[in-house]
Amino acid sequence: MPCTISVTAPSYAVTPLTFSCSKSTPIYHTSNFVTKQNRKPLLTVTKSMNSNRVVKVKATVSIEKETPETERPDTFLRGNDDGVASSVRFRFEKMIREAQDTVCNAIEIADGGGKFKEDVWSRPGGGGGISRVLQDGAVWEKAGVNVSVVYGQMPPDAYRAAKGAASNDQKPGPIPFFAAGISSVLHPKNPFAPTLHFNYRYFETDAPKDAPGAPRQWWFGGGTDLTPAYIFEDDVKHFHSVQKKACDKFDPTFYPRFKKWCDDYFYIKHRDERRGLGGIFFDDLNDYDQEMLLSFATECANSVIPAYIPIIEKRKDLPFTDHQKAWQQLRRGRYVEFNLVYDRGTTFGLKTGGRIESILVSLPLTARWEYDHKPEVGSEEWKLLDACINPKEWI
Amino acid sequence: MPCTISVTAPSYAVTPLTFSCSKSTPIYHTSNFVTKQNRKPLLTVTKSMNSNRVVKVKATVSIEKETPETERPDTFLRGNDDGVASSVRFRFEKMIREAQDTVCNAIEIADGGGKFKEDVWSRPGGGGGISRVLQDGAVWEKAGVNVSVVYGQMPPDAYRAAKGAASNDQKPGPIPFFAAGISSVLHPKNPFAPTLHFNYRYFETDAPKDAPGAPRQWWFGGGTDLTPAYIFEDDVKHFHSVQKKACDKFDPTFYPRFKKWCDDYFYIKHRDERRGLGGIFFDDLNDYDQEMLLSFATECANSVIPAYIPIIEKRKDLPFTDHQKAWQQLRRGRYVEFNLVYDRGTTFGLKTGGRIESILVSLPLTARWEYDHKPEVGSEEWKLLDACINPKEWI
Repeated sequence: MPCTISVTAPSYAVTPLTFSCSKSTPIYHTSNFVTKQNRKPLLTVTKSMNSNRVVKVKATVSIEKETPETERPDTFLRGNDDGVASSVRFRFEKMIREAQDTVCNAIEIADGGGKFKEDVWSRPGGGGGISRVLQDGAVWEKAGVNVSVVYGQMPPDAYRAAKGAASNDQKPGPIPFFAAGISSVLHPKNPFAPTLHFNYRYFETDAPKDAPGAPRQWWFGGGTDLTPAYIFEDDVKHFHSVQKKACDKFDPTFYPRFKKWCDDYFYIKHRDERRGLGGIFFDDLNDYDQEMLLSFATECANSVIPAYIPIIEKRKDLPFTDHQKAWQQLRRGRYVEFNLVYDRGTTFGLKTGGRIESILVSLPLTARWEYDHKPEVGSEEWKLLDACINPKEWI
Repeated sequence: MPCTISVTAPSYAVTPLTFSCSKSTPIYHTSNFVTKQNRKPLLTVTKSMNSNRVVKVKATVSIEKETPETERPDTFLRGNDDGVASSVRFRFEKMIREAQDTVCNAIEIADGGGKFKEDVWSRPGGGGGISRVLQDGAVWEKAGVNVSVVYGQMPPDAYRAAKGAASNDQKPGPIPFFAAGISSVLHPKNPFAPTLHFNYRYFETDAPKDAPGAPRQWWFGGGTDLTPAYIFEDDVKHFHSVQKKACDKFDPTFYPRFKKWCDDYFYIKHRDERRGLGGIFFDDLNDYDQEMLLSFATECANSVIPAYIPIIEKRKDLPFTDHQKAWQQLRRGRYVEFNLVYDRGTTFGLKTGGRIESILVSLPLTARWEYDHKPEVGSEEWKLLDACINPKEWI
C-alpha cells in the first residue's frame, strides 16, 4: 500500500510545516485519512466517501496531533546535537522566530489598534510551532504570522515519493527529517492596500537509520508575493525592487529566475490568471552554498517589512466605494480558489491532518463570488485582471 | 502517458456535466491542462507550475470549448436515433429541462423580485447546456439552476480510469458517451433560510467503435441535500420526510441507504464535519430496472420544490442579528471548502476546463473565515455544528 505523501509538498505550507509522519505513525492512504481534531479519541479511518462502499480500517497507530502549550519555548529543538548553536537548524529557527517578532511588531504598529493572538503548540514526536493571528484590526482584517519547527521520522514511502522514481530501487528504513519555516498572509481592509504573503522554509533529511553514513541532505524554499486589488505602479515597482535588491546581493540570476517561478507558481489554472502580481518564489534550492542560502533566506525575510509597510502607509486610509470593496472581495475569492485548489502546502496540510486553523489562516476574513463577473474593458479592475493574466516586468 | 480523467467524476458535477474529451481531442495529463477561456487562441499547454522547470507541449489538437448560443434549442440531442422520443436520453433531457423550468419559476415566485439570467452554450462535439442564475434577489443571494446534455467520444484511457483495473487488459478505441444532468445550488440571504443543493444525472457509454456489439451501459446518480446555518427541527424533518417519501415509492431500502451515502459524501475531511444536514445521494446506480430509475430520478427532481419552498416561506423574513449573519457566512466558508476541495464534479470541472462560471456558480455570493472560531457549547450555532459532526436520523 503505497504512501501518497510527498515530502516536498509541505515546503509550500502557508502555515505551519506540519508533518504527520513519524517512526511511530506510519501513514497509509493519507489522502483519505480522517483525523479527529480535538474532538474524539484518535482513530485512523480510511473511507471511500464517494460511494456507499465504505471501508473502515482501524489503524494500528494514531496520527500524531499537535498539543496546545501555554508558553513558547526558547527553542523547539531538543538538547542534542540538533540544538547546537552553530547548526543550520538552530540558526534557521532563530532567524524565523526573530522575523516573526519583527513582522508582528511592525504590523501591530502600522495597524495602530489590533493585537496578535498567539497559539503555541508542540508535537510529541518532535518540534512545534507558534501561530499568531491579528483579526479585525484597524488596518488588517486578518493577519497571520506563523512559525513551525518539526522533525521526526518520515516513512520510507514518503521519502521515495519525494525523491521520485530514482530511489525506487532502494528500500530505506524511516528517514529522519527536519522542517522549519515562517509563513504569513496579511489581508488589509482597504481595497487599495494589497495583501502580502511570504514564506521561508528549510528542510533536511538524514540517512536512514538502517543505512548510516549517507550525507544529510537539505533544501531551502520560500518567497514573498503581493496581491493587490488595484494597481498602483509605484507600489508594485517598489515591492519588486526590494525583492530584486535582496536577490542581487547574492546572485544576479536570482531575481529574474525567482520572479518567473513566482508567476508560474501562483497560477489559478482554471481561470488562466495569477492570484496577484507576484514577487519571488523558489523551492528545493540546494545547489548553492548552504551558508549563502541561509543568508539569502534571512535577507528575504528581513526585506518583508521594507517592501510592504511603506505601501500600506500610503494606501490604508484612501477613501473607497462599495464597488471597489466588492472588487477586492472578488479578488479575495480568487485567493481562496488558489489556496484551496492549488497551493501545495494547503492541500497537503488538509489531507494529512495538520493544524487546520493554522493552515487556513491564509484564507481572507471575507470573500465573494459573483456569477460571470467581467470588469469593463479599460477600467482599473480590468487593468489588475490583465496584469494577473499577462504577468509584467515591473522593474 | 496515462489519461488522468475519471469519467465517473463529472457525474458529481454541480454544473454542467462538461466532458472535454472527444475523439478529436485526446487528453493527456489533464490535471495540468491549461485552457484559455475565451481569451486566447486555443493552445494546449502542459506546465509544471511548481518549479522553474516549465515544460510546454504544443498539443496536436485543442480542447473543445463551449460556444455561447443566443437561443436555447428544443433539444441538445441530434436528429439521429439518440433523439428518438422513446429513448432514455430523450426522456431524461426532457425531464431535467422541465425540472429547470419548474424550479426556476418557483424560485422567482418565492423570491418576489429576482429574475434568472440565462446563458445557453453548445459544444461543437455534441450537446450543450443552459445555465440560469438569479443573483442578489430579495430572498436568495445566489441561485443557480443548470442543465447540460453532452456527448461525444471518450478517450480509452478515460474509460479505463472509470472502469478501474478490471479493464486494463483491454485496449478499446474511443468510447461514445452521453451525459446529462440538472444541478442547482440555492443560497438564501436570511441566515435562518437554508441552502439547498440538488443534482440528477444520467450517463451512458456505447461499445467502442472498433469493438461493436457490446451492450450500451448506463448509470443514474443524484441527490438533494439541505445546508442550514441554524436547525429548525421541523424544517429538517419535513425535508427528510419528502426525500423518504420519494424513495419509498420505489424501494424501502433507498432512503436509509441514500441518506447515509449523502452523509458520507458531503464530508469535509479536514474538519471532520459534514457541510450540512444531508438528504439523499446516490451514484453509479445501474442495478435496478432502467425505467424504474428514470421514474425515481424524476420523482426526486419533482420533490425539490415541495421539500424546500415551504421551509423558505417560513424562514425568509425572520429577523436576525449580525452575529447570526456572521455564523451563516462562516458556514458558507465551509461550503466553499467542501466544493473546492472535495466535490468531485467541481474539482473535475476545474481540472478539465469545463465552463468555469457554471461550475463555480455553486459558490456562495459571500463567505467568511474567522481564525479558530468555536461556537459556545450549547448555543444554537453549536447545535448545528454538532449535527454536522454527528449526523442524526431526522425521521
